[in-house]
Amino acid sequence: MKFSVLVEVTLRSGIADPEGATIERALPALGFTGISSVRAGKAFRFDIDAANADVARDQALSLADRLLSNPVIEDATASVEPVS
Amino acid sequence: MKFSVLVEVTLRSGIADPEGATIERALPALGFTGISSVRAGKAFRFDIDAANADVARDQALSLADRLLSNPVIEDATASVEPVS
Repeated sequence: MKFSVLVEVTLRSGIADPEGATIERALPALGFTGISSVRAGKAFRFDIDAANADVARDQALSLADRLLSNPVIEDATASVEPVS
Repeated sequence: MKFSVLVEVTLRSGIADPEGATIERALPALGFTGISSVRAGKAFRFDIDAANADVARDQALSLADRLLSNPVIEDATASVEPVS
């Protein structure tokens, strides 16, 4: 069965995020108010052929830890949806 | 009311994605099989103070178009969840 996976890689809390801070500083000049806690990260989308959603999620998180993120400073989460 | 927003910025289909292609080429050597259509993008998380989820989503998409993405080559999607 085929699953569509989104892996979101974000900096761990406590790790400085200059990109997010710069975006947040630019918001008032663009007229945006009420936006806070901006964090910048990476998003990876791919398809996995797997027996079920749990297997697909395990494989995605293993891939995230080994290739897509730096576990020392980044957290990775995976969301899995069946492809119709 | 406070909402947690995830803006996902991906390259439009048809735009070359060398980062995704490189990841996909590396997978067999790492023992991953059955993974295809890898696309690399950006993820932004922030909080919005807004009257309701629709207002929060509109504001997030407007921010995505004006600051977080390049609409010529990138698509942006926003998912909004209330913060408990």
